[in-house]
Amino acid sequence: MSETDGVSTAAAALIGLDWGTTSFRAYRIAADGRVLERHGAPAGILQIEGGDFAGALGREIGPWLEREPEVPVLAAGMITSRQGWVEVPYAACPAGEAELAQGLASHRAPSGTIRFVPGVAFEGEGGVPDVIRGEETQIVGQLGHEAAGGRFVMPGTHSKWVVVEGGRIVAFATFMTGEVYGVLKGHSILGRLMAGEGEDAHAFARGLAHAEGGAGGLLRRLFSARTLPLFGRLPETGVASYLSGLLIGSEIGEALAWMGAPADPEALTVVGTSELAGRYRRALAARGIEATVGTDDAAAQGLFRIARAAGLIG
Amino acid sequence: MSETDGVSTAAAALIGLDWGTTSFRAYRIAADGRVLERHGAPAGILQIEGGDFAGALGREIGPWLEREPEVPVLAAGMITSRQGWVEVPYAACPAGEAELAQGLASHRAPSGTIRFVPGVAFEGEGGVPDVIRGEETQIVGQLGHEAAGGRFVMPGTHSKWVVVEGGRIVAFATFMTGEVYGVLKGHSILGRLMAGEGEDAHAFARGLAHAEGGAGGLLRRLFSARTLPLFGRLPETGVASYLSGLLIGSEIGEALAWMGAPADPEALTVVGTSELAGRYRRALAARGIEATVGTDDAAAQGLFRIARAAGLIG
Repeated sequence: MSETDGVSTAAAALIGLDWGTTSFRAYRIAADGRVLERHGAPAGILQIEGGDFAGALGREIGPWLEREPEVPVLAAGMITSRQGWVEVPYAACPAGEAELAQGLASHRAPSGTIRFVPGVAFEGEGGVPDVIRGEETQIVGQLGHEAAGGRFVMPGTHSKWVVVEGGRIVAFATFMTGEVYGVLKGHSILGRLMAGEGEDAHAFARGLAHAEGGAGGLLRRLFSARTLPLFGRLPETGVASYLSGLLIGSEIGEALAWMGAPADPEALTVVGTSELAGRYRRALAARGIEATVGTDDAAAQGLFRIARAAGLIG
Repeated sequence: MSETDGVSTAAAALIGLDWGTTSFRAYRIAADGRVLERHGAPAGILQIEGGDFAGALGREIGPWLEREPEVPVLAAGMITSRQGWVEVPYAACPAGEAELAQGLASHRAPSGTIRFVPGVAFEGEGGVPDVIRGEETQIVGQLGHEAAGGRFVMPGTHSKWVVVEGGRIVAFATFMTGEVYGVLKGHSILGRLMAGEGEDAHAFARGLAHAEGGAGGLLRRLFSARTLPLFGRLPETGVASYLSGLLIGSEIGEALAWMGAPADPEALTVVGTSELAGRYRRALAARGIEATVGTDDAAAQGLFRIARAAGLIG
């Protein structure tokens, strides 16, 4: 399952790690920001036995570290959480590359010093905080490609909507859409009705429409995923797509109400080219918002920019 | 686990069955509606091996059936669903005791004829139907005690809000609150944060407040059940109660928006005296609505009234 691309003997200026809950990605990056080599493996923090992160790092990129022991190593993602290697306090909003660089935590590992990028906390309305870890680095990388401002949608188990102004993250909100979908599919009566998970574009669109126009709120609308197939008005093969549309449509409605619909739709970027990101773009298009496609691979650029801001790259 | 109360040798005019997903309740009822004997067991339709409902009936109330073989037997609840004994087509709204009596289905069982009460379907907004099975009979029983109209809240895995006018159910809505709570508690990251399920009234009230006043919709608000304990702003022993308050509060907000806040709060009845029904009453009280307490045990009265309307009781 692991993969390594673009073997290069050119000198690296940074080794960047994007180390999340379920995956590990590493990059050898040149002084001009080009990615010389990349390596990925399903070695997320939940897969590391006994929390032996140093051992895992050696298994994944030992040869890189031995070949260029002087090159700085910078890591971002859930590896900086309480369940990770070194828990790094959150940076506060507004946070851009300078603030993240200031908040780096250093740790002396067997292979040499590793630096960790802090996540970001946003003090939301009503004394309820919100948090990201890893997404801040991807956002900084996106800004390398795009403007210094904008609104970003980052689909996932916990999807994040991020507002950036003047190169800094000023606000964001987390929606538990992916996790709610997963537990309802796996463990509720709705999942027991589903015949397969094949994509049904028509059922997805109906879910979107019911999320936007249906009566009641989400707790009531969910029940339509039971009654429509019960009455033969939705094929059982379409229930999974319908539920996905209902939840993603609900999230988009909540998020636009929270951040305000963008005056310029192009200022809204859906990050990534995954199948899930495609669903978000179609869901936004159904509301007349043609979102920009953000790069999947912004973490390497973000790590590079933060390292440069921290003076780690000569 | 089974229990039998009030053994009586007086003649019964009806044997009523309230046979749900997880429980079985039977009543010997006199010609004037008094309950002479009652029997309950955890013999819901999901617990009956191989669908042998006739065998289960004999095990639970065989002596009653043998002693008075001429007494009519009337059943309501999920026993009339596709997963039950005899699937009975739904009655349409508006539906009261007369419409339910007209829709009875007869089935010749080894012990004699059994009649089944139909559930009710409501053709909701946007071509999305809603359904109840069992609650219609409890509502008819409530009407025996209360006025011929009102609004009823029936908490449960799928909680039901029912509008009754002129003795007939005219509209209702289902909210998947209990099931969403269960799957999030059992299978999501929120459940992993919970330290016990003990009731924490303060945390419950905070969940209610965030449901009513928090930014965003439910998918966003759910994440507060993760970030508040993460930041030490909510004890882990309170997370379960907080989530319960957040979900019940969200349901009440959705339901009041759907049916309109009652002009006369006394016209809103929360059915039952369970711990869960108590939470709903406290949640309504937090919005200034002092709901009426409905009887737990309306099914027997509902079965009696429907049997009388059907001419089964001389």
